[in-house]
Amino acid sequence: MNKERLVAFTDAIIAIVVTLLVLELPRPDGPSINALLAEWRSLVIYIATFILIMVVWYNHHIIFTNAKTINRTTYWLNSLWLLLQSFIPFSASWLSAYPQSATPGIFYVAVTFLWAVSFQLLGRNIEKLNPDLIMPNRYAFPLLYISYVLEAVLFLFIPILGIILIPVMAGGIVIGSAIVERRRDHKN
Amino acid sequence: MNKERLVAFTDAIIAIVVTLLVLELPRPDGPSINALLAEWRSLVIYIATFILIMVVWYNHHIIFTNAKTINRTTYWLNSLWLLLQSFIPFSASWLSAYPQSATPGIFYVAVTFLWAVSFQLLGRNIEKLNPDLIMPNRYAFPLLYISYVLEAVLFLFIPILGIILIPVMAGGIVIGSAIVERRRDHKN
Amino acid sequence: MNKERLVAFTDAIIAIVVTLLVLELPRPDGPSINALLAEWRSLVIYIATFILIMVVWYNHHIIFTNAKTINRTTYWLNSLWLLLQSFIPFSASWLSAYPQSATPGIFYVAVTFLWAVSFQLLGRNIEKLNPDLIMPNRYAFPLLYISYVLEAVLFLFIPILGIILIPVMAGGIVIGSAIVERRRDHKN
Amino acid sequence: MNKERLVAFTDAIIAIVVTLLVLELPRPDGPSINALLAEWRSLVIYIATFILIMVVWYNHHIIFTNAKTINRTTYWLNSLWLLLQSFIPFSASWLSAYPQSATPGIFYVAVTFLWAVSFQLLGRNIEKLNPDLIMPNRYAFPLLYISYVLEAVLFLFIPILGIILIPVMAGGIVIGSAIVERRRDHKN
Repeated sequence: MNKERLVAFTDAIIAIVVTLLVLELPRPDGPSINALLAEWRSLVIYIATFILIMVVWYNHHIIFTNAKTINRTTYWLNSLWLLLQSFIPFSASWLSAYPQSATPGIFYVAVTFLWAVSFQLLGRNIEKLNPDLIMPNRYAFPLLYISYVLEAVLFLFIPILGIILIPVMAGGIVIGSAIVERRRDHKN
Repeated sequence: MNKERLVAFTDAIIAIVVTLLVLELPRPDGPSINALLAEWRSLVIYIATFILIMVVWYNHHIIFTNAKTINRTTYWLNSLWLLLQSFIPFSASWLSAYPQSATPGIFYVAVTFLWAVSFQLLGRNIEKLNPDLIMPNRYAFPLLYISYVLEAVLFLFIPILGIILIPVMAGGIVIGSAIVERRRDHKN
Repeated sequence: MNKERLVAFTDAIIAIVVTLLVLELPRPDGPSINALLAEWRSLVIYIATFILIMVVWYNHHIIFTNAKTINRTTYWLNSLWLLLQSFIPFSASWLSAYPQSATPGIFYVAVTFLWAVSFQLLGRNIEKLNPDLIMPNRYAFPLLYISYVLEAVLFLFIPILGIILIPVMAGGIVIGSAIVERRRDHKN
Repeated sequence: MNKERLVAFTDAIIAIVVTLLVLELPRPDGPSINALLAEWRSLVIYIATFILIMVVWYNHHIIFTNAKTINRTTYWLNSLWLLLQSFIPFSASWLSAYPQSATPGIFYVAVTFLWAVSFQLLGRNIEKLNPDLIMPNRYAFPLLYISYVLEAVLFLFIPILGIILIPVMAGGIVIGSAIVERRRDHKN
């Protein structure tokens, strides 16, 4: 596999997904501040999802920059990850349309959960092929999965809290992985 | 021709086409699981088409990585292939809108069939220019064409089976070409 | 200026414009062949515009591959050219919506005409900065401008013929520039 | 950080944002010149925003070409800048829909203002990491901020003048930074 071409192709798809998110944002239904604020749920979901994708891009970038060997399986795990990622604008838009229902929220959690799992599988494949590579944020996944479960439970009972948890989670991931990385840099 | 620039341009178009597919997905008409499942045909068509394009990207990538010489004809065959590919979201969306009619299904088959033919022409042009290059999955095309005919016949008589055959075909191609490649790797 | 980055950025914009064209295609209003054929004008405009952009990409590619020096003016002429190009999906979609009226047709001609003029200005700038560079298809521009005038006149009196002339023009440009290039290759 | 990959990813997002702008352009409501001209506000906002983004791309390109060191903070400031940029098509479209109201105009000013601030932060981060780098157009920011205030005031009292000021500002920035650059080239 030509790693550079695969990375560029992947980046183009991520760039489009992250930008399509904004296309799904409903336009405010009037020229007032209230009309804009009425869409606050969509705005929160949008911004948090944007941040989530940026975190993941950063990790994808670290893994692929350091990997020396990739193979056909890497390609297909990367494709699976991209396929799940392409459902994020779809599920974010469904959630924006029905912010007070449980199902679209749980579907959003399920999509981002499977997306994280496929990313972990991709990481493991690259670790196997490149034994001296250390995955970044390796210990973050269990924590991530716990917060997904929490989020699903919130959506089931108090959907509005589920929506509010999305940016909290996204922010937590950014700050958490910054701390981990700083500590690691300190050790070396 | 500057091969790198052509490949990057082609990849950008493929990335957009594969992501536009999801834009065409109809949003569920309500916040329930049933509303989501009511769109199962669109989801199946979308996922299978995504996989089909990923298979073809992989083969395009192998051919172009190995090719040393390309010319003006390569460019135009590549453009024809991209033009046909750009009709895939259009035909997938038409098929999603009328999943129980024969014509949109047969049109989808025709578009993906012509797309495969143009890819084979592109491959032949590159084989001629690079005599020591061996096309991957060379013997897969007759098999592919037979399944296109089968799919068209199904759409004519039992459209729902035609839709179900699309992911079966896509999966078959992924697995089939993996087997072929493993066998070849074994020989070398 | 970093030529590689400018070229990659330009290609991404062209890739999006060429793919957005298909998003503007109206979906057939029913599951029959007739519903598809009712959109023949849109299909013809779409395919011809796709080919036009592909021809122009090819020429842009030749000029930039050979250019050794570019400057700030090159950047702004390239941006002007991209701005005009971004109006092509807009004008193609307006023309598709009112194929029997003169104004959208003439607007389409005007946009593609100004787009060609800006491309010629871009080419001249690069020729000045790179004196040993010979512009491809240099003599094609007067011919192109004459056919734009013809097309505008047709749209004014018989809009349907204007639409039919678009693919004829696109095909003529592809074949014409292939002949010119073959002749030049023969001379060298 | 792999600078090349970050730059390519950033460029893909900018390319999509700049092209999405045209997708938001309302199609003229009829086949006449008057129907086209009725959309003049949208056209003015679109063209001016396109130019603004092109100016910023140019400056981004200069900074990143010259930077030798970037870090995690650079990445997150760049992401913040991209996030704010992704709101430009959204706010341009809201402004186009209600051109005679103050709020969408002020929101547009606020978005482009925050976008400029995040760009300045990004520039400072790179300056710190690369002490011998001189930021282009460094003194332009105070001037830019004054014109943002002026624009906000205009939108508050005479929205139509606010819209007209956008292209004036965009043009002023292009010409202004060209003068600054020429003077600097003259000195060296």
